[in-house]
Amino acid sequence: MARLGRSTWDLQQNPVYVSGVGTVAGQVEAQGPLGQDFDIRLDNDRIDDDTWEHSEQRMFSQAVQTAMEKAHVTSEDVDVLVGGDLNAQLTGFYFGTRAFLRPALGVYSACASICESLALGALIVHTGHAQRVIVGTSSHTSTAERQFRYPTEYGAQKPPTAQRTVTGAGAAVLSRASSTIQLTHATIGSVVDYGIKSPWEMGAAMAPAACDTLLQHLRDTGRTFADYDLVVTGDLGHIGLRLLRKLLLERGINPEPERLNDCGALIYDAKQPEVFSGGSGGACCTIVTFGHLFKRLLDGTYKRILVSATGALLSTVSAQQSDTIPGISHAIAFERKDV
Amino acid sequence: MARLGRSTWDLQQNPVYVSGVGTVAGQVEAQGPLGQDFDIRLDNDRIDDDTWEHSEQRMFSQAVQTAMEKAHVTSEDVDVLVGGDLNAQLTGFYFGTRAFLRPALGVYSACASICESLALGALIVHTGHAQRVIVGTSSHTSTAERQFRYPTEYGAQKPPTAQRTVTGAGAAVLSRASSTIQLTHATIGSVVDYGIKSPWEMGAAMAPAACDTLLQHLRDTGRTFADYDLVVTGDLGHIGLRLLRKLLLERGINPEPERLNDCGALIYDAKQPEVFSGGSGGACCTIVTFGHLFKRLLDGTYKRILVSATGALLSTVSAQQSDTIPGISHAIAFERKDV
Repeated sequence: MARLGRSTWDLQQNPVYVSGVGTVAGQVEAQGPLGQDFDIRLDNDRIDDDTWEHSEQRMFSQAVQTAMEKAHVTSEDVDVLVGGDLNAQLTGFYFGTRAFLRPALGVYSACASICESLALGALIVHTGHAQRVIVGTSSHTSTAERQFRYPTEYGAQKPPTAQRTVTGAGAAVLSRASSTIQLTHATIGSVVDYGIKSPWEMGAAMAPAACDTLLQHLRDTGRTFADYDLVVTGDLGHIGLRLLRKLLLERGINPEPERLNDCGALIYDAKQPEVFSGGSGGACCTIVTFGHLFKRLLDGTYKRILVSATGALLSTVSAQQSDTIPGISHAIAFERKDV
Repeated sequence: MARLGRSTWDLQQNPVYVSGVGTVAGQVEAQGPLGQDFDIRLDNDRIDDDTWEHSEQRMFSQAVQTAMEKAHVTSEDVDVLVGGDLNAQLTGFYFGTRAFLRPALGVYSACASICESLALGALIVHTGHAQRVIVGTSSHTSTAERQFRYPTEYGAQKPPTAQRTVTGAGAAVLSRASSTIQLTHATIGSVVDYGIKSPWEMGAAMAPAACDTLLQHLRDTGRTFADYDLVVTGDLGHIGLRLLRKLLLERGINPEPERLNDCGALIYDAKQPEVFSGGSGGACCTIVTFGHLFKRLLDGTYKRILVSATGALLSTVSAQQSDTIPGISHAIAFERKDV
């Protein structure tokens, strides 16, 4: 019931744990530097489906299935699924989780959806209204390109500020059953609009929101960057991460280089073809956090991390109507517990 | 902390109240039989904006502003906004609430989004993590037509099973401060797919989900239809409501005619032009509930009602790819408290 400031939920009193995770990585993601950290590594982003959308839905299902297996539960043990994706009307989530026949709550904050899902899923478990909640998101470079920019087949050239939408999906089972990774805090972000209009500059559109949410989290909890072994943003990419450092510095905050990173900067090797400024997409923060960072919490490399997923709030229609691209970011704190 | 069954949250222990509501109705809705129940009645669905989308965003802002005024709060008193709309990537919600500069959680379950927002908003207040939450949704017939079917300007003919997307927006302030209307239970629905493929038959696509959620709610709470003065679904329309009665009857349940109704059947007079099987859209259930039904709770006509908003889970892309249209429905129970 504790309430820290206006935007952070302290969930330590009725603790919420991560009981199991599942991650699916597309071909380029599987070949990247974190490839070995993912459960399912695809060698073909289409799998054997008739459309990219159906492939993404299948990835979502696979991630949920894997998370349930690792948590030793079946769908009947799951009280509710919370998640989202980048497709209009959340067809990735709803079609991807339909077969589990469980209550479902779709959320959308673009690529920040995983932290929105974690916040709400954890709150439901925290209150005791559910024993187990599954949270998850997906994205697919080929469904996202035609959703937000041009169909891949069109072959549009991209500037170096562009980011590659991660193909993949990730899911986690949250429960009250004690385990090594505890979800301790959720900070809900506000819409922050710096007036960016180019859909090729997502990092610039989202960095101000990440800055706003990180500062809010530190104010609300009384913590500093030094209290975290790692603070990661969702998918600012290399350029957005540089902008975030600049925004923090303007506010007198200068985190050590190794203490602040970005999932979009981590997921690809700059030598991989056409990864531009790094990864983005609803699955970027999800599979890096659940696949890569959670392994470092489990092996003791990290004791406490903060993950602030970042979303760019544009649609085909808003871009065509020359609207700006506001950003939003929600932050989740995880801690290693010795159980 | 009580937990009834697997899908209903009992929120009575730390009670959540409706402190104020705001409703905006488009031209056709304002001329309908419930017209006098809405706060802002438009005589022009475009207001004075350059696009239909911007008009919808303005309606959303107006609904939130009105709800805050009636609850005697300003945006600084609001901890978080929870809501959604039918536009791809929730631009109605995010652009419509951007100016309030408050934490925001976008949700999507098509026209069931208002009950998803009420469930999550109430849960946040219930836990004590927020003092005040605003929930709301919007829809606009002209933004929805081009999102889901054809642009209005195309002049496509519609079959009698079609429904008119409600133009309007509604918002409510939820808080722990005691007032006449209490939100007591939330039942989270599952995705239910009866294989409907026509975007002109939303009532048929959603009725099975409404049936599933209503039965789940009654099972979880041990209540029957007789425990409610009125049970309303969100936007099944006249045809969908008939299908719901049939589905209930197949399960041996035959509610009295006056005890089961539908917001989409209530909002228009069948004599109004081009309203077909009735209203639909994210704002349909919202403005009928907040504008019309809450007045009947306040004046004592009703003591207890159940509102089960209904959503059809289709997108332009899923329709083009010949996917089915699954439905989902979430139910919220409201009670009059003599304070």
